[in-house]
Amino acid sequence: MTTKTSEKSLQDLFVHALKDIYYAEKAIAKALPKIIEKAKHSELKDALAAHLDETKGHVERLERVFSDLELKPAAVKCEAIEGILKEGEEVLELFGDSPAGDAGVIFGCQAVEHYEINRYGTLLAWASELKLGQVAKILKSTLDEEYNADDKLTRLAESGENKEGIVRRAASRKAA
Amino acid sequence: MTTKTSEKSLQDLFVHALKDIYYAEKAIAKALPKIIEKAKHSELKDALAAHLDETKGHVERLERVFSDLELKPAAVKCEAIEGILKEGEEVLELFGDSPAGDAGVIFGCQAVEHYEINRYGTLLAWASELKLGQVAKILKSTLDEEYNADDKLTRLAESGENKEGIVRRAASRKAA
Repeated sequence: MTTKTSEKSLQDLFVHALKDIYYAEKAIAKALPKIIEKAKHSELKDALAAHLDETKGHVERLERVFSDLELKPAAVKCEAIEGILKEGEEVLELFGDSPAGDAGVIFGCQAVEHYEINRYGTLLAWASELKLGQVAKILKSTLDEEYNADDKLTRLAESGENKEGIVRRAASRKAA
Repeated sequence: MTTKTSEKSLQDLFVHALKDIYYAEKAIAKALPKIIEKAKHSELKDALAAHLDETKGHVERLERVFSDLELKPAAVKCEAIEGILKEGEEVLELFGDSPAGDAGVIFGCQAVEHYEINRYGTLLAWASELKLGQVAKILKSTLDEEYNADDKLTRLAESGENKEGIVRRAASRKAA
């Protein structure tokens, strides 16, 4: 049954957004192995591999959310993640084998993380307004992991007091 | 002249990312009027109209960055923004005329803002590593405006002590 546009509620928009991020998480889980393969820095590879495991967990969490709402898990094509991943692939093709390769990997992955942080942040706010306490709790767990993944990438990119980050290394390396 | 992949440097990646965000800013400036038209809440309309003006300024700032680097302004297709804007259009088609319409407008626009915040944040970090002080300053001005635009959308969505935000209004309204 299709709901007429004029009758659609915030709950309908919430469910639409859930289906969108469900698609996105599955697309990210599919794209990550190729990105991990391209990454050179071992800590970067490890961070992305750990995030791949988390991403699979995010898919399962969304399935729990659908179940809590008494809905069957369903995806709608997420054009945003398709575009973000396509752009990431292009950067890898152009820069993956260059001294700037790992900076390019982080560039692509942080665009993904920021998209997810934004989406889960909004879903969490909506779940609270819709008084879906248990669902909000599940979404919050994933949001926290997305923030951590993004922070980890930033730390790997940035230089600390005793450590040269991926970006400084790329900046200081002359082209081969 | 094409630089071989193995010879590409962080500076090349930086210029690529500049061309990408230059494309994105122009695409956003083109998309915003239609989104403003769909928005119902007057403060939301005003906020987006103000951000349209800022966006045109961001295009000009990027042209100054290209000029500082002694490059001609050039764009490369930004697949990410194409996807994010396409997704926003779809949400407007599905929900634009519903009680959740303005929540949908904010949903779409915050995905754009988060993409830009991420990109300008990275560009700023790279400009600093590449010792491009003046360029970094210009990019910082835009980054600050993107943060402000995103915060304003969050404030309009959220409910304050004395005010019902767009999301609570949508949640409490029964479908028409």
